[in-house]
Amino acid sequence: MKDAERLYSNRSKEMKASEIREMLKIIQDPEIISFAGGMPSPDSFPYEEIERVAKNILREHGKVALQYGSTEGVIPFRKVIAKMAIKDGINIDHDNILITNGSQQALDMIGKIFLNHGDLAFVGLPTYLAAINAFKPYSKNLVGIPLDEEGMQVDLLEEKIRELAKKGITPKFVYVLPTYHNPAGTLMLEKRRKKIIDLACEYDLLVIEDDPYGKLRYEGDKVKPIKAFDDEEHVLYLGTSSKILCPGFRLGWSIGPKEIIRKMVIAKQSMDLCTNVFSQWIACEIFAKEDLLDHHIEEIIKLYRPRRDAMIKTMKECFPDGYKCTKPQGGLFMWVILPEGIDTKEMLPEAIKEKVAYISGKAFNVDGSGANTMRLNFSYSPEDTIEEGIKRLGRVIEKRI
Amino acid sequence: MKDAERLYSNRSKEMKASEIREMLKIIQDPEIISFAGGMPSPDSFPYEEIERVAKNILREHGKVALQYGSTEGVIPFRKVIAKMAIKDGINIDHDNILITNGSQQALDMIGKIFLNHGDLAFVGLPTYLAAINAFKPYSKNLVGIPLDEEGMQVDLLEEKIRELAKKGITPKFVYVLPTYHNPAGTLMLEKRRKKIIDLACEYDLLVIEDDPYGKLRYEGDKVKPIKAFDDEEHVLYLGTSSKILCPGFRLGWSIGPKEIIRKMVIAKQSMDLCTNVFSQWIACEIFAKEDLLDHHIEEIIKLYRPRRDAMIKTMKECFPDGYKCTKPQGGLFMWVILPEGIDTKEMLPEAIKEKVAYISGKAFNVDGSGANTMRLNFSYSPEDTIEEGIKRLGRVIEKRI
Repeated sequence: MKDAERLYSNRSKEMKASEIREMLKIIQDPEIISFAGGMPSPDSFPYEEIERVAKNILREHGKVALQYGSTEGVIPFRKVIAKMAIKDGINIDHDNILITNGSQQALDMIGKIFLNHGDLAFVGLPTYLAAINAFKPYSKNLVGIPLDEEGMQVDLLEEKIRELAKKGITPKFVYVLPTYHNPAGTLMLEKRRKKIIDLACEYDLLVIEDDPYGKLRYEGDKVKPIKAFDDEEHVLYLGTSSKILCPGFRLGWSIGPKEIIRKMVIAKQSMDLCTNVFSQWIACEIFAKEDLLDHHIEEIIKLYRPRRDAMIKTMKECFPDGYKCTKPQGGLFMWVILPEGIDTKEMLPEAIKEKVAYISGKAFNVDGSGANTMRLNFSYSPEDTIEEGIKRLGRVIEKRI
Repeated sequence: MKDAERLYSNRSKEMKASEIREMLKIIQDPEIISFAGGMPSPDSFPYEEIERVAKNILREHGKVALQYGSTEGVIPFRKVIAKMAIKDGINIDHDNILITNGSQQALDMIGKIFLNHGDLAFVGLPTYLAAINAFKPYSKNLVGIPLDEEGMQVDLLEEKIRELAKKGITPKFVYVLPTYHNPAGTLMLEKRRKKIIDLACEYDLLVIEDDPYGKLRYEGDKVKPIKAFDDEEHVLYLGTSSKILCPGFRLGWSIGPKEIIRKMVIAKQSMDLCTNVFSQWIACEIFAKEDLLDHHIEEIIKLYRPRRDAMIKTMKECFPDGYKCTKPQGGLFMWVILPEGIDTKEMLPEAIKEKVAYISGKAFNVDGSGANTMRLNFSYSPEDTIEEGIKRLGRVIEKRI
């Protein structure tokens, strides 16, 4: 074509290449120790179980498992997910559930269904990068609410909502990651969760609760999802099998009010008809055996906890003074705040030269703040690699002090 | 929530439940003979081959096949698709290819990337229903170009483009299904395909060539895809494994100019990160064995050809005079034009009462025409079932004459 540019929609000009996914290409070099991705360890995948179950499914349910499926998702799979949710205190049935192509697809749908150009939505400061990228093509008006050690500061959220209400502005939704936050690693306690529900009831707000890491708890008490307190149905809850089974299956689930799930189903019909049916059947059979799944999750925790600990310990030993770091009770990420004046994005090429990679924190902040922050993933590499990588990173930071 | 309605985007008000997918729910009754869906026969799925290959993949490539994959798609799979395309006369390499979650996802992406509210795009009269539903949330301004026995009437398209050019209006794209059209069953011959390329070059047009059925040829000569004549890169070609392997894997591929593929990759990053990786690896290994795939497609053709023939023969015997029907040389669908005055949508409840189902044709026409038309699928049911269904349908039509 001579000029494709003139054919693009305004929306597509807001589509940004994800810093993480672009980074994953740069760090193909096997000598680089990468803390950049958010990948589970391949040692956590239940290969033999999947092989056994896949064979079974093909023999017992092949005709339906290889055919088009319903847009809502495979019914037995949605029933198993409903059972898991009920165990977490979420009072729903399978008609409240839509299976998506990873929970990322739900984020795109939420943008598509709720955001007109210019509409306002709340996110955390920082928040999940790919949520920002999913929402922005629909509306750039994302307002960040700062986090503290317990996640989103709900009193600041309340202030903002009040201000907007005075101006007659309706926020379309609040997007929160209350459990082992990506990137911040924080855990929101029950009191604050209930406060979000109170606000939602008072202002008839829609709350998007993204919970990919809830099951990966290394210490501390279990805290119920916000959705568990949601008696008046203000919460759309997003779950995924990526961190407890494997990401290659691309399976996510949205749990919400039937009216909103129905809207999402209609959107999905024209987006991709249905989610991969074969993988839904495999995941269904694995998740249906509760003991097996619980045991498998226990194994993943045993794998990741020492990795987290190794990262924290080596940081203490090798990072120059003046940095701050969350000690996440679960999940995959650590959030590091370096002394003011250090720009982690500027520092990155040096780090790559020293064969270590991370994601600089600015990309996670819709207001462009956080130049001195970075996100480190601790799930992917074994302890000795983590120790070596953190040592390298310490040397790179040292030079900037 | 008290009032979710006020939170929806304008776009979401254009999202319509697909008539086909809604119909699929109505016709759960096993006594109903359905010509409504577009499903391949479950007898066409290579169960044993998939079982063998899945086991292999898990053992040989499990670590990558269960992990997140690149947004573009698994490289060996894209290389196999490139090889298949080259055999069809399409001169590209794997960097021209993006793997999508079924080719339906590509249709949604095309809407998202190209259509501002109000933008104009051309489609056939009739055209694929789910393409209409994919484009409409982005822009309702879809202009239909009538089809004749050889598919889209390109001279009428040319006239429209000229008119628009005079008014300074740029059509964003032309969406065509040149090979065994859904729903019309038509085949566009080479001369007309080349004419589309001429127009594309003259007006710097983007052409979307949707080709899910090209390999299912029951008679007549093979005609090259429009993309094979596309020396100046105006064509984005959409393929899928749904009709030659199985739909449950949700695998589609877009083949186009690198610039547009790159734009689609960025869009997909925030839409679902990547397509199901495990299924890409399985399809890759099956497609890599050309002889095996060719043989498998030959088997599918052997299965479907007599079904098509049975449908045509029984129609001749049992339908009252005055109907017209395409004799499709390939694909899955027959398009029936009943005498003026018969409204197939009104007739549908009667048909359901007689335990036979179809899709009324109006839904496929963006201008609301075609009340007397209907689409019949012949791939799903065996011959005797088709004969019985067509007899029932004949009786229903008889009453309307």
